[in-house]
Amino acid sequence: MEVRNKTYTLVKCKLLLDARGVKENVNVVVEDGVIKDIGNSREGDEVDCSNLVVTPGFVNSHTHTAMIALRGYYDDAELQEWLQRMWDFEKRMSSRLMRLGSEIAILEMLSSGTTAFVDMYFNPEDIKELAEKYKVRGFAGYTFLDSMLDPEEVARRQEGLRDSKHFKAIVNVHSVYSVEEDTVKLAKELAESEGTWIHIHVSETRKEIYDVKRRTGRFPVEYLRDLGLTSLVNAVHLGWVASWEIEELKKARATTHCPTSNMKLATAGAFPFFEMMEGGINVTLGTDGASSNNSLDILAEMKNAVLLQRHNYWDTRIKAIHAFKAATVNGYKLLGIKGGLLEKGYAADMVLFDASLLYPLTRDRLLSNIVYYAGQDAVVATIADGVIYSRSELVQRRRKLGEELNRELEKL
Amino acid sequence: MEVRNKTYTLVKCKLLLDARGVKENVNVVVEDGVIKDIGNSREGDEVDCSNLVVTPGFVNSHTHTAMIALRGYYDDAELQEWLQRMWDFEKRMSSRLMRLGSEIAILEMLSSGTTAFVDMYFNPEDIKELAEKYKVRGFAGYTFLDSMLDPEEVARRQEGLRDSKHFKAIVNVHSVYSVEEDTVKLAKELAESEGTWIHIHVSETRKEIYDVKRRTGRFPVEYLRDLGLTSLVNAVHLGWVASWEIEELKKARATTHCPTSNMKLATAGAFPFFEMMEGGINVTLGTDGASSNNSLDILAEMKNAVLLQRHNYWDTRIKAIHAFKAATVNGYKLLGIKGGLLEKGYAADMVLFDASLLYPLTRDRLLSNIVYYAGQDAVVATIADGVIYSRSELVQRRRKLGEELNRELEKL
Repeated sequence: MEVRNKTYTLVKCKLLLDARGVKENVNVVVEDGVIKDIGNSREGDEVDCSNLVVTPGFVNSHTHTAMIALRGYYDDAELQEWLQRMWDFEKRMSSRLMRLGSEIAILEMLSSGTTAFVDMYFNPEDIKELAEKYKVRGFAGYTFLDSMLDPEEVARRQEGLRDSKHFKAIVNVHSVYSVEEDTVKLAKELAESEGTWIHIHVSETRKEIYDVKRRTGRFPVEYLRDLGLTSLVNAVHLGWVASWEIEELKKARATTHCPTSNMKLATAGAFPFFEMMEGGINVTLGTDGASSNNSLDILAEMKNAVLLQRHNYWDTRIKAIHAFKAATVNGYKLLGIKGGLLEKGYAADMVLFDASLLYPLTRDRLLSNIVYYAGQDAVVATIADGVIYSRSELVQRRRKLGEELNRELEKL
Repeated sequence: MEVRNKTYTLVKCKLLLDARGVKENVNVVVEDGVIKDIGNSREGDEVDCSNLVVTPGFVNSHTHTAMIALRGYYDDAELQEWLQRMWDFEKRMSSRLMRLGSEIAILEMLSSGTTAFVDMYFNPEDIKELAEKYKVRGFAGYTFLDSMLDPEEVARRQEGLRDSKHFKAIVNVHSVYSVEEDTVKLAKELAESEGTWIHIHVSETRKEIYDVKRRTGRFPVEYLRDLGLTSLVNAVHLGWVASWEIEELKKARATTHCPTSNMKLATAGAFPFFEMMEGGINVTLGTDGASSNNSLDILAEMKNAVLLQRHNYWDTRIKAIHAFKAATVNGYKLLGIKGGLLEKGYAADMVLFDASLLYPLTRDRLLSNIVYYAGQDAVVATIADGVIYSRSELVQRRRKLGEELNRELEKL
C-alpha cells in the first residue's frame, strides 16, 4: 500500500462531489489527515487526478465485521431462525476467525470507499488494532447479549477498552428483546460514565414489537425513552416504528437504515426514511454483517435505500442526494468527526473514482452515477485519514486473507 | 481481446456451478462455441482454471441498450413522467448515439457475465452488427410505439430484418397502452409469419391497468389473451397482474422480472415470482435500460430479485437458486438456445470468477456467494459462443467508448 508523505496534493481533480454540490477542476491539499485547502494551491507530493472524481469517504454505520466467516452460511431463513443459527455457529467461532473476518471486512469496506464504520461484535480489541493498522475510523465495544454473555463481565471488559487515534469505544447492546432491563440500565451508566453512545438494534421485526410490547407494555422506542436512552443511541433498523416513536427519535444521535439486510431477512420493515429526514433526524446507512447482506458495500446500500423507499411509498420523494448524505456527512455526524464534506478543515477521508467509467459524465448526472451506477470496480483508490490505498492493492490483500479464511474454516 | 483457437480446454476448473448443482476440479472442453466435454479430457489450447469458478453466462431478458446515453439523465421521476422525458430526449437522439450506447451496453453486460440479451429500441440493425462483432446472442426488432412511429413503417422495416448467426429478429411492441389494437394485430401477424415471438412491457404500473381496463374493458393480460397473443410473448414487468392472469400466463413463452427498475420508478409492482415459478411459468430476469436501473448487471439483478420478493412476501420462499435459474437456464429457454447449463452439447457461454474473491468458498456456499455477494469485479473473463473476453480488456474498451459518448453528448 502506498503511504503518501505528510503533505500532498490531489492535482486537478476532474470533479468533486459532496452533499453540498459539485466542483470542477480543483486541487485538494492534504496534510496530517486533514483537507488543508481546496482550490488552486499545491503542496508536497502531487497526484494527478485529472481523470478522477472525488467524493467523501463513506460511513458504514452498522456492521458486524467478524461475520465474514458466516457469509453464505445460512442464507435462506427469516430473522429469528437465522439469528439462532448464527448464535449456534458463533459459539464455535475462534478468536482467530473473528480477527480474520474483521480484517477482511475492513479491506472490503476500504475497497468500496468506506473509511469509517460502527461495529457490533465480540472482538473490539481487534477492531482497535485494525483501525490503527489501516487508519480507518473504527467504533466498537463489547456486546451486551444476555443469552451469551454475563452483563457484569461485558461491563468489566468494556471499562478496560480505551480509545486511540482511530478507535473509539462505544457501548453495544444487541437489542431490547435480548437483554434484561438491568442490562439496559448498566449499559446506560457505562455510556454516560465513559462519555460515549449506545449502538443497538431496534424494532427490526414485527415479532420484536409484539414481544417487547407484551413483556414491557411498551413499544421498543417507548421503552428506550422511559429508560432515558433515546439521546444516547444509534438506533439501527427501525423497520417497525410507530409515528409517535419517530417523534421521540428526534432526540437520537442517529438512526441507521440497513435496506439490504431488512429485505434479505424478510423483516418486511419500512424504515421511514423520508419522515425521519423531514423531522431533522440524522439518518445514516449500514450494510449489516456479511451474513445478512452479504456485501459490505455502501455504494450498493445507497442505491438499495432509494429503491426500497420508492417501492414502499409508491413515489420518488427519496432521491439520490438523500442516500448520499446519509452515507457521508450524516455518518460523520454520528461519529462526532468533522468529515463527510470536501472542505478545508475536514477529515481527509475520500474516494477516488475512475471518471472514464462514470459515463455519461456531466455535472448534473454525477450524483446519479455515483449512487445508482458506480460499482466498487470504479473505485481507483480510497483515502483514509490521508493514507492513499489503491484498490488493486486492497483487492490483492483480500485475496490472500480470503485464502487464509478458507483454510481456517476447514478446521472447524 | 483474446480469441482462442477453435478447440480449447478450461483445465481443472476449481468449481463449476449451474442450476443443477456443483462440480469440482473438472475440465471443460470447448469446440466451435459448444461445450464438447466436461470431465477429465483435454483438447487444444489449455487455460488454467484451478483458481476459477465457472458458471453459465447470464441472459438479460429485457433491456434497452441504446439508452446508455440517457443514464442519469432524469432519475427522480415516476414512470409516466419519466417516460415522457425519455421520449422527448429520444426524439433528438442521433443514430450515432444509439449505436454507441448499444455497443457500450454490450461491453458492460459482457463484463458482468451476460452473454445474451433481449433488446427493445429503434436500432436493431446495430444490435445485429454488434452481436456478430462480439459473438453475444442479440435479440431485437423495430419497436411498435404509435406516438413515435407509423406501425406500417415499423412492419416494413421489420420484414427487412434478417437473422444471422448471433442475432435473431423478434417483434417489439412497447406496451398495450401505447399502441392501437390494429398495431397489436399487425405485430401478431408479423411474429407468426416470421416464426418469432413478441417482446412487450405488460402491467408495469397500476395506472396502466386502470387505463387499459377503461379503454378495452379488460386487464392487460386478458387483452393479450383475447387477441391470441399469450403464447407468443415474453411479457416484461407484470408488477400488477391479477391471480387469474397468472393462470393465463402459463401459456407465455416467458415472463421477465426487472426488480431494480420497478423499484426505482416507484411502480410499487409486486411481480409474483413464487406463484409463477410454482405454476411452471418460465421466469427470467432483466435489468431494463441504463436510465431506469442504472446498471446492466445481472449479478445485481439476481440479488435484487430475491430481496424484493422477500420484502413483499414477508418470508424467504424465494431463494438464491430461483434467481440463478431465472438468469441462466430459463433465459436460454426463452431464447430457444441450448444453453444456460454446463453440460456437454450446451452453448459455450460462461463466466469465470476469481475463486479467491468468493471466500468463504465451500460447495454449499458457492451459490449464495454468486447471487448475494459477487460483484462484477470478481469476474475474470466471460466466454461468449466460445470466445474468451478478459474483463480487464472489456473495461478498457468501455473507458474508450465512454469518452466518445461524453463527446457525442456535448454536441447535443
